Amino acid sequence: MAEAYQKEFFNVTFPAEHVAHVEINRPEKMNAFKEIMWLNLRAIFQQLSHDPSVRAIILTGAGPRAFTAGLDVQAASSGPTFSSSTHDDPARKANGLRRHILEFQACITELEKCEKPVIAVLHGISFGLAMDMSLACDIRIASADAKMSVKEVDIGIAADIGTLSRLPHSVGSLSWAKDIALSARVFGADEAFRQGLVSAVYKDKTEAVDEALKLATLIASKSPVAVLGTKEIMNYSRDRTVEEGLRYTAVWNAAMLQTEDVKSAMMSGIQKRTPKFSKL
Amino acid sequence: MAEAYQKEFFNVTFPAEHVAHVEINRPEKMNAFKEIMWLNLRAIFQQLSHDPSVRAIILTGAGPRAFTAGLDVQAASSGPTFSSSTHDDPARKANGLRRHILEFQACITELEKCEKPVIAVLHGISFGLAMDMSLACDIRIASADAKMSVKEVDIGIAADIGTLSRLPHSVGSLSWAKDIALSARVFGADEAFRQGLVSAVYKDKTEAVDEALKLATLIASKSPVAVLGTKEIMNYSRDRTVEEGLRYTAVWNAAMLQTEDVKSAMMSGIQKRTPKFSKL
Amino acid sequence: MAEAYQKEFFNVTFPAEHVAHVEINRPEKMNAFKEIMWLNLRAIFQQLSHDPSVRAIILTGAGPRAFTAGLDVQAASSGPTFSSSTHDDPARKANGLRRHILEFQACITELEKCEKPVIAVLHGISFGLAMDMSLACDIRIASADAKMSVKEVDIGIAADIGTLSRLPHSVGSLSWAKDIALSARVFGADEAFRQGLVSAVYKDKTEAVDEALKLATLIASKSPVAVLGTKEIMNYSRDRTVEEGLRYTAVWNAAMLQTEDVKSAMMSGIQKRTPKFSKL
Amino acid sequence: MAEAYQKEFFNVTFPAEHVAHVEINRPEKMNAFKEIMWLNLRAIFQQLSHDPSVRAIILTGAGPRAFTAGLDVQAASSGPTFSSSTHDDPARKANGLRRHILEFQACITELEKCEKPVIAVLHGISFGLAMDMSLACDIRIASADAKMSVKEVDIGIAADIGTLSRLPHSVGSLSWAKDIALSARVFGADEAFRQGLVSAVYKDKTEAVDEALKLATLIASKSPVAVLGTKEIMNYSRDRTVEEGLRYTAVWNAAMLQTEDVKSAMMSGIQKRTPKFSKL
Amino acid sequence: MAEAYQKEFFNVTFPAEHVAHVEINRPEKMNAFKEIMWLNLRAIFQQLSHDPSVRAIILTGAGPRAFTAGLDVQAASSGPTFSSSTHDDPARKANGLRRHILEFQACITELEKCEKPVIAVLHGISFGLAMDMSLACDIRIASADAKMSVKEVDIGIAADIGTLSRLPHSVGSLSWAKDIALSARVFGADEAFRQGLVSAVYKDKTEAVDEALKLATLIASKSPVAVLGTKEIMNYSRDRTVEEGLRYTAVWNAAMLQTEDVKSAMMSGIQKRTPKFSKL
Amino acid sequence: MAEAYQKEFFNVTFPAEHVAHVEINRPEKMNAFKEIMWLNLRAIFQQLSHDPSVRAIILTGAGPRAFTAGLDVQAASSGPTFSSSTHDDPARKANGLRRHILEFQACITELEKCEKPVIAVLHGISFGLAMDMSLACDIRIASADAKMSVKEVDIGIAADIGTLSRLPHSVGSLSWAKDIALSARVFGADEAFRQGLVSAVYKDKTEAVDEALKLATLIASKSPVAVLGTKEIMNYSRDRTVEEGLRYTAVWNAAMLQTEDVKSAMMSGIQKRTPKFSKL
Repeated sequence: MAEAYQKEFFNVTFPAEHVAHVEINRPEKMNAFKEIMWLNLRAIFQQLSHDPSVRAIILTGAGPRAFTAGLDVQAASSGPTFSSSTHDDPARKANGLRRHILEFQACITELEKCEKPVIAVLHGISFGLAMDMSLACDIRIASADAKMSVKEVDIGIAADIGTLSRLPHSVGSLSWAKDIALSARVFGADEAFRQGLVSAVYKDKTEAVDEALKLATLIASKSPVAVLGTKEIMNYSRDRTVEEGLRYTAVWNAAMLQTEDVKSAMMSGIQKRTPKFSKL
Repeated sequence: MAEAYQKEFFNVTFPAEHVAHVEINRPEKMNAFKEIMWLNLRAIFQQLSHDPSVRAIILTGAGPRAFTAGLDVQAASSGPTFSSSTHDDPARKANGLRRHILEFQACITELEKCEKPVIAVLHGISFGLAMDMSLACDIRIASADAKMSVKEVDIGIAADIGTLSRLPHSVGSLSWAKDIALSARVFGADEAFRQGLVSAVYKDKTEAVDEALKLATLIASKSPVAVLGTKEIMNYSRDRTVEEGLRYTAVWNAAMLQTEDVKSAMMSGIQKRTPKFSKL
Repeated sequence: MAEAYQKEFFNVTFPAEHVAHVEINRPEKMNAFKEIMWLNLRAIFQQLSHDPSVRAIILTGAGPRAFTAGLDVQAASSGPTFSSSTHDDPARKANGLRRHILEFQACITELEKCEKPVIAVLHGISFGLAMDMSLACDIRIASADAKMSVKEVDIGIAADIGTLSRLPHSVGSLSWAKDIALSARVFGADEAFRQGLVSAVYKDKTEAVDEALKLATLIASKSPVAVLGTKEIMNYSRDRTVEEGLRYTAVWNAAMLQTEDVKSAMMSGIQKRTPKFSKL
Repeated sequence: MAEAYQKEFFNVTFPAEHVAHVEINRPEKMNAFKEIMWLNLRAIFQQLSHDPSVRAIILTGAGPRAFTAGLDVQAASSGPTFSSSTHDDPARKANGLRRHILEFQACITELEKCEKPVIAVLHGISFGLAMDMSLACDIRIASADAKMSVKEVDIGIAADIGTLSRLPHSVGSLSWAKDIALSARVFGADEAFRQGLVSAVYKDKTEAVDEALKLATLIASKSPVAVLGTKEIMNYSRDRTVEEGLRYTAVWNAAMLQTEDVKSAMMSGIQKRTPKFSKL
Repeated sequence: MAEAYQKEFFNVTFPAEHVAHVEINRPEKMNAFKEIMWLNLRAIFQQLSHDPSVRAIILTGAGPRAFTAGLDVQAASSGPTFSSSTHDDPARKANGLRRHILEFQACITELEKCEKPVIAVLHGISFGLAMDMSLACDIRIASADAKMSVKEVDIGIAADIGTLSRLPHSVGSLSWAKDIALSARVFGADEAFRQGLVSAVYKDKTEAVDEALKLATLIASKSPVAVLGTKEIMNYSRDRTVEEGLRYTAVWNAAMLQTEDVKSAMMSGIQKRTPKFSKL
Repeated sequence: MAEAYQKEFFNVTFPAEHVAHVEINRPEKMNAFKEIMWLNLRAIFQQLSHDPSVRAIILTGAGPRAFTAGLDVQAASSGPTFSSSTHDDPARKANGLRRHILEFQACITELEKCEKPVIAVLHGISFGLAMDMSLACDIRIASADAKMSVKEVDIGIAADIGTLSRLPHSVGSLSWAKDIALSARVFGADEAFRQGLVSAVYKDKTEAVDEALKLATLIASKSPVAVLGTKEIMNYSRDRTVEEGLRYTAVWNAAMLQTEDVKSAMMSGIQKRTPKFSKL
């Protein structure tokens, strides 16, 4: 099954029943991203989203040093963002950049659109794109050695792949969110936990990945219908009024409450056994 | 006066001037909810909302064991959500479920619509519906023994009575909110406080209810015009842009600043005496 | 240069390159605001917003006792909000009040609209308007002695200059936000930090102002194009869906990524030297 | 069956299979509304909404002279809007008025919320409330003698029961909409048709009611699942972005496409016979 | 009184009680706009908005040939939009343009924000800015000789002062709106009337101005409280859901229904005399 | 060049400079759509969107009888919407349907997202999907023989590919829009024109295609930067408040006004010659 997911710079494995593990695999460059990588990331998560044997996913970075150091600036400097464009006209150049940013954003947003929950494990250097990507995941946990930064200001740009749009909805303190985004300063796992950016910290990468796997396994043991709905409705409601959220929820559950899973789950609860749910 | 509020499974008392105490009263079933209870809850809070002698409300659960264990699954299994519907057609069944969810949501939303602030005191088992209800209240406090859980995933459904729509607007860490909603794990009062779900924790239920009563009494001593506006504008603004919030506020206060309460409050401040405000 | 900013009740200085320091200067009245002050505040920040030599701003209160004690109630009591209006008709009076509130709100919102980041330093008494103003700033820090309160309920009004609209988007715990707004209770710097209202606390005002200045200097050393975009996109996204945020960001950066600053910043990074950015 | 709907000032009949006819019945006062009438209107449409034997509704006014002349000003002048309130305080009076307007609006909005399409037939005098009510219906037709007016400005108020909120979404020309609302001038059926306020005009009331009945009968012959969805999605989409509309539609139809009606409808189409659909 | 409104390139007169007439006065250049003109336009309408003796306004162009030919391209070519900027950097240049566009938009939006209804009379050449301005007015009427065009595409730009944002909300046919905006073709008064862009057409400018004056006089004879609310609520509702519109309306009228005008208007109606309303 | 666009069931030609003609080509089945066709439609318009040699597009149906008769029901009846799904569980089936609808919607929305204006020419039978598709185009014109219908209700479904979401924003009369959607009745070109659904009617298909080509050629002669912005901003503004539209426009034009096209267009205007614009 892992073969169906073979893409350059990524390892996809299935360490537990219904759980996929996506590993960013370019450790010799601190998992820095070049264009092919985000296209591959999108392809992998589009496939996982509809894969009936997958119910929860963890996303990690290979090697001891970094979740990802962010954009591979060297590679990018010959790409459309930073290189001299084929157009001289600033308007035509702008439209080329707009197309490019929208496509890059769409790749990262695939993590949020994926029907299955995604748990990101941040360790070591987690700069720039590491924030964009992990903020598009559902749950963020960190190892104690994680060093994070919204780094884009330091290369002269406002982060445009999602951090600035998702951060104000992901942590409580807007003052802190602006502090880290405007100063580009590096902060550690403890600060990230205290501010709610990550919801757990473990002593090292090994333990953090183990715990992420346990959490993914737990989620994967639940009704996939219920888990899908929970992710979908929370993302929908994060962005809208409570009233809109409730209305959407009612329409959503009008179909979903008809599932057999409700009976299975209740029976299993009464009989103290583990329910089995069919594939989604 | 308490007589006007007599409804099965609820005690309504008036422990202090302008303060109502609504107690969920089915302790032998850990305050689990059946249909009549949420209809009664709605009726009580609709009446309290317009009752001129009430200015603040606390909501608690009877008995030592639970705020509420949530939906009475046994009772519900013969109700419209889980029982075999009168319709076989999945579309007609869906519309029946939609009507039912919307009505159930409307009952809980009455806590939010109530013109007077509502303080929920969570203690003991506080599962499922306990989250839906307390998230529709204005202030949540807990006793140290409270055990909370967004339990719905464990019975095969995405919570649809409000938790998933209100939680992302009620706590800061979206990662934590998804963690508890997707895993259905039980968490305690300290974690709830650290994450902002509750804003105070007291050593046991008795103390928590006492402190809730003190806070309600304090709020009830303020101008009811000012308190009404503060609740209304915060709920409105939670869901909208700052710009929309400001515009609504200006129209709201265009009438409300004409109140006599401003003069009374100011005079009392200068004269170091407690102001008296007329009924709303 | 400071001369261009001379306005009654304010000191504007330039303590570091590209950094402005705006001090509310009415210490003998605990920096309480009368009408001319908020008009002057607006004028100053409109000018700073477009001043090409300014890249970051700190906002403080003069004297040891207060950031600001809020509205100068004595002065206000002869102003349009509280005095007997020229109109007897409640509708005409309401429209006068609405115009007045909208204008007052617009003055405070100028802090948010200012193209340059604004860091507020709260110390001593920080009541009422202190909350409205600092919540319209980007970053809030406090000295250990700061005493804060959303005080308006105590004078019979729902706060209408921004606190109730911005607070639910600025801290994580909605329960805590309603607690302080409904009770008008005084809370200290530690509680404000724990709840995310401020993102740092320092031992006294001197240290807090020093640290604010350091942070402003750090921000002012970054590309002004990147800093402008970061503030603008975060404020935009705070209020909207992630999807809307991403779309706006793509259009914004379509122009902004064409800046020379990207090259300067990257080169400086490689060459380990401080980049110089031209004026915005 | 009609007995179940007996309410003062209304006749409810069932002139064709699955079609209800609601007639406002106070012709001696030109069908002017007093408070009990709008409460009865709400009760009737709430019941029709869930009545499985009803699939389309027409709304008309009794007698030759008027659909309705609007609010019964004489009756209203002793009601909460216009009479001296129990409160002297302008803020408390304002809150009483707000409650009253919200309740009145909710009565009229029941026409829009009703799950079955409602066709209004305007004839003769159709002033004020006639506009509020018919704009909350799905389809408006008129007889040639209809005289319409957004009359509220002439009694010193901005129409607050729905006309000003629905009109800009119901006709194309905003200039015309403001012209009639600001001038309160009377206009005829032809002008209303040309501007899109009504979608058909017939020579007299008899013919208009006949044609409305034919249209209702046609709609009632369609799948009730399809008709419900069409009304719901159009109302939802009228108020939102196309993107939001599409997303809601997909969730809606995820349940509704599972209906047996699709097969019945298709088969009937092929076999050139009239399909029979089971009750909703 | 007209003296208070003396601004270059505008005549402001008061042809009837409570009615102001603003005439664009640069006929020798077909009323083409240069920068000072839109600043003056803003100043005039800000003043009219709060002028208690004004209740309705008509806006016309001086001379027989044009309402306005639009932007004075010759003058503009030395202004910030088209001239070489002081910045070479495309990002800095973009920010300068953004500031400039926002300011220009704000001038035109003053017509919409003005508390009193504004009736635009289009005659002769009405190109570009003529559309931007008249779409920000409440009512548009035309003389038969009016020649209109959304002209901006012909000078290489997407109209950015309001036409493209207001047009889809002002006429019914989106297909027609895009046709005229994408082709920049000239169309006449009859087509504009048929498509709802204007709500009346008169045989020549003289008659059109006379009729506009009559309509303004009619509106000015109504309660200014009712007229203000009608304009405000229609503009608010045009842009929002019906539900939001209703909620805002209820808060608005909570103050406004307390006006004496209701009684005056009703009494006058009964007594068949013209009511007198006090100043707003 | 046409070769690059070869897709089954479509002809793509380039009848004039910068103009593409996409013809739905399955005349023997009245251009009824099966799944491969909408996937091909998406692919073609994605490619046209970024094709620098294309500036305007017309969309027509092959043969004399139909623009399109809509969904190929026979083909669809073996597809996911109508056939027995692989899932028995109504919830899992619902999720499969949701995925399918979202994908189908995305294909049609590609017409709206296409950076170049699309003109649809409706002729003959134009049912169901014909409405969905043409409503996603920018401009709709018709031949006199066009017979249109929102047909979906007749096969038991609420139209879910866009008609119900786009129709209320595309025509003025909501009453008429609901009439045609709820009754599924067939209407002709004249009625469609009068109601604003199409913006022009020509005597037969040949003339209609000729006129569409002329209009496309005219649009293609304008600055492609200006045309792109006009389409983008109108679609954006259709769905949002005027205020949001203005803000987005300012950011958009901050880049786009820097184009050389403004100078070219102005110079050409002065020199009475046809401007040449470089590729976008």
